[in-house]
Amino acid sequence: MHDIKWSPSEKKVARRAYEAALAVALAKILAEFKAKAAQVATPSEMWDLEEYLRRKRKHIDTLFDYRYSQLTFVFAAAIREGYLDESSLAGLPEEKLEPIRRLLRWAEG
Amino acid sequence: MHDIKWSPSEKKVARRAYEAALAVALAKILAEFKAKAAQVATPSEMWDLEEYLRRKRKHIDTLFDYRYSQLTFVFAAAIREGYLDESSLAGLPEEKLEPIRRLLRWAEG
Repeated sequence: MHDIKWSPSEKKVARRAYEAALAVALAKILAEFKAKAAQVATPSEMWDLEEYLRRKRKHIDTLFDYRYSQLTFVFAAAIREGYLDESSLAGLPEEKLEPIRRLLRWAEG
Repeated sequence: MHDIKWSPSEKKVARRAYEAALAVALAKILAEFKAKAAQVATPSEMWDLEEYLRRKRKHIDTLFDYRYSQLTFVFAAAIREGYLDESSLAGLPEEKLEPIRRLLRWAEG
């Protein structure tokens, strides 16, 4: 998986899908955060929300890793989390899509 | 300063003042947090607010240390930060109030 070469046009598709997924993930967390923050009424709930943000930030930092060796995992995770639709990867050849689908099937186990 | 003994009635005054100052500090941070959270419109502003909460939590954890050896510092800091009024320490003898005032004068330089 790590030896697969990415052509310039594939890199363009990958970069666009990656940025779109990241934007969706952040927008989702932002919306959740705003709803939770509006409900906060006690210091304890406020510290819970700090912890929530910390976890979400680490989740984003871990998931979104734009190294070509990692993109199969990134795209599979992004699809599974609902940040990306496979249709956004149109333009990638079957040899790059199939490992993503295989990971998703495996994750659904 | 560390060898000063606290009588039961002095401990009662100290505990009450300490809890009141902590409640004021938390209420102040909570109000600031709610105002800031309502203004958050981007992921970047959301992460800034996470950092703000982290700093405030550490500030509270550092300041509020209920060891009798630390209370002079705690009360002086709480007064300086606006979490406590010296009148809440009424009932403490002069030998405990004077070191607090001395610290405050020193801090004001």
